[in-house]
Amino acid sequence: MTQLPVSFDDVQTAQHALKGVVHRTPVLENGEVNDLLGGRLLLKAENFQRTGAFKLRGAYYRLLNLTPKQRACGVVSYSSGNHALGLARAAQMLGTSAILVMPSDASTAKMRATQKLGAQIVTFERDTQQSRDVVARTQAETSRIEVPPSAHPQVLAGAGTAALELLEDASALDTVVVPCGGGGLTAASAIVMASGAPSTKVFAAEPELFDDTKRSLVAGKPVPNPVGQRTICDAIMTPIPNDVTFPINLELLAGAVTASDQDIRAAMRFAFEHFKIVCEPGAVAGLAAILNGQIAIKDKVVATVITGGNIDAARFCALIGDKA
Amino acid sequence: MTQLPVSFDDVQTAQHALKGVVHRTPVLENGEVNDLLGGRLLLKAENFQRTGAFKLRGAYYRLLNLTPKQRACGVVSYSSGNHALGLARAAQMLGTSAILVMPSDASTAKMRATQKLGAQIVTFERDTQQSRDVVARTQAETSRIEVPPSAHPQVLAGAGTAALELLEDASALDTVVVPCGGGGLTAASAIVMASGAPSTKVFAAEPELFDDTKRSLVAGKPVPNPVGQRTICDAIMTPIPNDVTFPINLELLAGAVTASDQDIRAAMRFAFEHFKIVCEPGAVAGLAAILNGQIAIKDKVVATVITGGNIDAARFCALIGDKA
Repeated sequence: MTQLPVSFDDVQTAQHALKGVVHRTPVLENGEVNDLLGGRLLLKAENFQRTGAFKLRGAYYRLLNLTPKQRACGVVSYSSGNHALGLARAAQMLGTSAILVMPSDASTAKMRATQKLGAQIVTFERDTQQSRDVVARTQAETSRIEVPPSAHPQVLAGAGTAALELLEDASALDTVVVPCGGGGLTAASAIVMASGAPSTKVFAAEPELFDDTKRSLVAGKPVPNPVGQRTICDAIMTPIPNDVTFPINLELLAGAVTASDQDIRAAMRFAFEHFKIVCEPGAVAGLAAILNGQIAIKDKVVATVITGGNIDAARFCALIGDKA
Repeated sequence: MTQLPVSFDDVQTAQHALKGVVHRTPVLENGEVNDLLGGRLLLKAENFQRTGAFKLRGAYYRLLNLTPKQRACGVVSYSSGNHALGLARAAQMLGTSAILVMPSDASTAKMRATQKLGAQIVTFERDTQQSRDVVARTQAETSRIEVPPSAHPQVLAGAGTAALELLEDASALDTVVVPCGGGGLTAASAIVMASGAPSTKVFAAEPELFDDTKRSLVAGKPVPNPVGQRTICDAIMTPIPNDVTFPINLELLAGAVTASDQDIRAAMRFAFEHFKIVCEPGAVAGLAAILNGQIAIKDKVVATVITGGNIDAARFCALIGDKA
């Protein structure tokens, strides 16, 4: 086994550091749903996390570990929105500033909320520009520190605290399914389970048209998604697995599963009806893969992370309202 | 102090009996909301309870305490929907049958779900018939046992377990605000706080046009609501305080507050945006009275029970979608 960049101990250290900063979110379960599915379904509700997504965990922890001098330089990152919100809030709480590089088609609700937290937004064109080039340019111009959404060990250790809480609050987990964009929460969850519950299988769940991790696991190396495709899962619409998270996922994951946008909408409705929770599309990729049958749940205990709930009312209603 | 029909010990006994049957629902809190309000807001999320509302607690506990012979007779009750769901499910779990007397304008989602749980529905006209007459007739015809939505000590003891969990999970509560229809959860919460946290003030929260408890507390005796009025809060649209819950509320409550239907919609939107949860209108009467300023929260710890989340997607979206 290769030496991984993040250990179980690192996640425990992060958990200690984040105490009182991030919310310990509940693990939801419903008796009637379990009867329906023939197994136990657990939802780690990170849509209840401060700023509406798990991302605050990694962003805050990374910022906390900067030296005062580094922190004073301010931070910069790419994000489709949830990491933007987490990083903007962390910057605000720790007395520094953030610039966020966001795709021009990012959720308007997420953009507005990011600005409201005092961060500056720089947009780029998803199909013709690389986010990393825009971040690099901004970084060079301003000497800000980059806090990537997933490709940093401290960001992963922070994200892993969600999985660590799940491990502490649930027992006898057969399977954990994690919505996967950049692969950070997936990798961090795999690290936590590999040490804390080695028999628990961890799967990445991706949108059908953004299954880069699935194909990359098969190929044994990062393979990109074709340019120009779209999914309603704005939070996990990533071009290619990155160099920090992919080696971990290749080493530790049991596999990857997918969900169509139709499956995603059905899962959002399921969460609305049975769990009374508001999920954004990307947050239910794991739930959708359980409901569409790609993840077996009969006679098993299966958990998935509901990664976020940042969606405005009009968009939410458009997605859950029409059963077509 | 008059001898109350339910004691703190009764609620503890009920809690023991309901273990493994009802879900221990989480108490939700959000750091950004607290910053916004200048105090701590806690939501006891009974919309996550099995069958989508706190009512299963009281219904199941009452059924559990029937003799086998009584239980075999089946049960009957009035309900606008949430007690119907709780009682239907409890009957199903304990191997008996339920007839529910529901107003003809009850939520279609609640009616459908009640039937799906195997219960039979008898409808009545809200403005021209008394639910109690219809229940009495059904009871006489069938020898079924009546399990009222609130007017029975064991139903109250069961409902009180929600407040007992809140007491165990939250500390230093200044105020608890409870949505109030028949007044059962309000009375049960007041009993729990009077013993467990005597300095905590308990308020009833009612729809502006169904403020019978508020006016009755002033009058010192049950005063009815005018016939023919409506509110979007279908779960707490009751005609008059009842003889079991009102004496308790008169003895123990700090007061009653109200919310307009517009306040209720704003509170549903607030819960959607900041807590990512689905609430039915009646469930946010307490939250609405906090947000409309009738309950002080600055520098305080204020909890409210989100009593249920049984609302279909179309209705939910109609209520939160239009900001008029």
